[in-house]
Amino acid sequence: MDKETFRKYGYEIVDWIADYLENTSQYPVKPAVSPGEIKAKLPEEPPAESEDMQAIWQDFHEIILPGITHWQHPGWFAYFPANNSPPSVLGELLTAGIGAQCMSWETSPAATELEEVVTDWLRQMIGLPEGMKGVIQDTASTATLTALLTAREVATGFKSNEDGMKPVLRVYASSEAHSSIEKGVKLAGYGRDNLRYIDTDENYAMKPEKLDEAISGDLEAGFRPACVIATIGTTSSTAIDPLPEIGRVCRKHGVWLHVDAAMVGTAAILEEKRELLAGSGYVDSLVFNPHKWMLTNFDCSAYFVSNPSHLINTMSISPEYLRTSKDAQVNNYRDWGIQLGRRFRALKLWFVIRSYGVRGLQDMVRNHISMARWFAGKVIESGNFELLAPVSASLVCFRWNDGKTPETELDKINRQLLARINESGEVYLTHTLLSDRYTLRMSVGQRTTTRADVEKAWKIIKAAAVR
Amino acid sequence: MDKETFRKYGYEIVDWIADYLENTSQYPVKPAVSPGEIKAKLPEEPPAESEDMQAIWQDFHEIILPGITHWQHPGWFAYFPANNSPPSVLGELLTAGIGAQCMSWETSPAATELEEVVTDWLRQMIGLPEGMKGVIQDTASTATLTALLTAREVATGFKSNEDGMKPVLRVYASSEAHSSIEKGVKLAGYGRDNLRYIDTDENYAMKPEKLDEAISGDLEAGFRPACVIATIGTTSSTAIDPLPEIGRVCRKHGVWLHVDAAMVGTAAILEEKRELLAGSGYVDSLVFNPHKWMLTNFDCSAYFVSNPSHLINTMSISPEYLRTSKDAQVNNYRDWGIQLGRRFRALKLWFVIRSYGVRGLQDMVRNHISMARWFAGKVIESGNFELLAPVSASLVCFRWNDGKTPETELDKINRQLLARINESGEVYLTHTLLSDRYTLRMSVGQRTTTRADVEKAWKIIKAAAVR
Repeated sequence: MDKETFRKYGYEIVDWIADYLENTSQYPVKPAVSPGEIKAKLPEEPPAESEDMQAIWQDFHEIILPGITHWQHPGWFAYFPANNSPPSVLGELLTAGIGAQCMSWETSPAATELEEVVTDWLRQMIGLPEGMKGVIQDTASTATLTALLTAREVATGFKSNEDGMKPVLRVYASSEAHSSIEKGVKLAGYGRDNLRYIDTDENYAMKPEKLDEAISGDLEAGFRPACVIATIGTTSSTAIDPLPEIGRVCRKHGVWLHVDAAMVGTAAILEEKRELLAGSGYVDSLVFNPHKWMLTNFDCSAYFVSNPSHLINTMSISPEYLRTSKDAQVNNYRDWGIQLGRRFRALKLWFVIRSYGVRGLQDMVRNHISMARWFAGKVIESGNFELLAPVSASLVCFRWNDGKTPETELDKINRQLLARINESGEVYLTHTLLSDRYTLRMSVGQRTTTRADVEKAWKIIKAAAVR
Repeated sequence: MDKETFRKYGYEIVDWIADYLENTSQYPVKPAVSPGEIKAKLPEEPPAESEDMQAIWQDFHEIILPGITHWQHPGWFAYFPANNSPPSVLGELLTAGIGAQCMSWETSPAATELEEVVTDWLRQMIGLPEGMKGVIQDTASTATLTALLTAREVATGFKSNEDGMKPVLRVYASSEAHSSIEKGVKLAGYGRDNLRYIDTDENYAMKPEKLDEAISGDLEAGFRPACVIATIGTTSSTAIDPLPEIGRVCRKHGVWLHVDAAMVGTAAILEEKRELLAGSGYVDSLVFNPHKWMLTNFDCSAYFVSNPSHLINTMSISPEYLRTSKDAQVNNYRDWGIQLGRRFRALKLWFVIRSYGVRGLQDMVRNHISMARWFAGKVIESGNFELLAPVSASLVCFRWNDGKTPETELDKINRQLLARINESGEVYLTHTLLSDRYTLRMSVGQRTTTRADVEKAWKIIKAAAVR
């Protein structure tokens, strides 16, 4: 979508919202649609080629809008309000445009400090004691779960995050698995002690025979193996755990197999990368994030399960005030996850997939991978830099090493090098540790990044290295 | 904010985003700000009166933008991408404008069915097996926790949600508490069996002496009381648990006190309603949702804690690839909740509070409460309707009852009545059960709802009753 088209439809949607917020009452507050009626009007397969915004916008009016329950209707007296307002919509628009991910102060200082300020404003506004500190959660469900988890830890002297529950259930992941797995293991009550890290090979991929040994040993020792997490594209180096072999081990022992493909899952939209998810027939659940590498603004994370009834049995609640006459015929996604409240995230995903078409998304991913390969080639050719992991997608792990400097000095040199690279303000790279070595990570994936930007980065890196 | 102002700034922000997405490279990818620098430029207290959008927009440029880390910069090679795109921004804008809350099929059929379609598109695009079903989560952290919870339940034959962990920790809430508490108790590993529902009085508020008895009894029996959840405004009837008395019981026994004020917390912005949160000095954690009744589009839930170190000790993870040199000086909100990834929700909240001013928000809330009181008055006067609970905020619980019809027939009559009311398409009310009686809920809280809309609702209800 070019700039003029974005502006044209931006204005048009702004106009539409301006009218909508004023005239919501012209719609029936609750749509007269039957289960399946809207789905039947939508194509089962994603569009291969880019579609015109005009067609998407028209379908919104003809297909989606007639199936919307109008929470902003003045006749909304149901459940509870979820009222919005023009300035809030403007703030959300701007948030989407900036597209920042606000996990840490570093990844958006202004977002963090503004959050400190406005939550304190709220504290003052409702008259909470001065010492209380605020943070924004997505929903009260999450906030309440957070309170229960904290209360549990306080009540056990912060022991249950470590020790877990009885019976002793075990979880397995590679030693390169993402930190969210350790956090999940703690919060879900397994106890960190029951997360077993499985050794990796020279490419930082899980060794399936080690997994098999660990599970067998645990079974003999009376533990109950509950979950294996295979990573397709680790955070540190995009290492690829061997899914078919891991799947066979899980099948043999009857253990749940979850796949964390958060970043690299998107690469599987390429025919030539489809092998990344070979073995997915063994998978019980899998996650990948369109909000990372598929042009969908944060947040939007796609979670797949082979047997939804397990998920629903785990999550479902059905108090009287949420029951409806259609419950048996429809998906109530509140029972497919942790939160009760849910935004309409499918809409932006629909816009993206239609607007780019699968082909457009493939072109972008292929281009990023090719830029990463070009960069890796430069690293190899250079003589005073080295690759520290295979380039399986669009991340290059490397460091400065002239082959003459003692290993003991390389961490410090590379740490200083990274600081100098980032000082430029023109590029931003982060680091990790691989086999205890300080490693620079060149992660290529921004929509607007061109070959020229990667070339410039390489120049900045080389220049920073000779200083 | 009037329609023309919304359109003017809508266009201006669309234009700004159009330029920004093209010219992100003109900004330093990582801002050169020190911890506390942005906060120091923001007022410590919320504005009492409405501020002009021009002033807010100018402050965005002068204060916020210089502290943004530009994830959309072509020189972004840090962490992982969180790339967005013009159609995605348009989709998010539209989502914010519609402001639907998509927890159930009923609360937005089109959202649910579009989610089914686009997650299946994704499944096809990355080549997952045909049987797998998809759902959108906010982040991979949440998805992974979801997988771990499901795996745990499968491994224990769905027993650990019920039985919980050792040592046996107990949670207490009133029998009117929200379903998300039961869900949280299950997911956090306490086990549903260890959630004790405390009896309520004739106003559906928790009896503090019953709470004291329950905790004392549990202590004698060797259980460990971990958490009490007081509700300020229950979902069914906005009953108000007596916070000071409950707080004293918690203090006496050393038990964590969490307050669920999701809906009614907003009412405490009124001086005359400040008493709702009297006793907040006893509180360890509290949640209220600006996305419900404070003009902030979904999602935005404010969570407050008295001692952040407990929260951080429970939640924190610190893998090498997330460490920065500033960690000791700043809040990293990833350690204040469950997800690693976080949107910049503070921005819309800032827009809302400044744009309306505390006064503007108070006016809205006061107005909603007064409309609910008017409606309750009509119910009382009518002679053939009755109130089923006190009106403590903006929710009226009532039913048709002419005083002559046998109690055994009233549930059916009121169920049919609600269906007829909603058939009109002009209003939408939902129901609950209070003391096992089918109860109609008139929840007033939409920004655009006027006295005329409430009067119309009352007419529709009366007309539906005589049919």
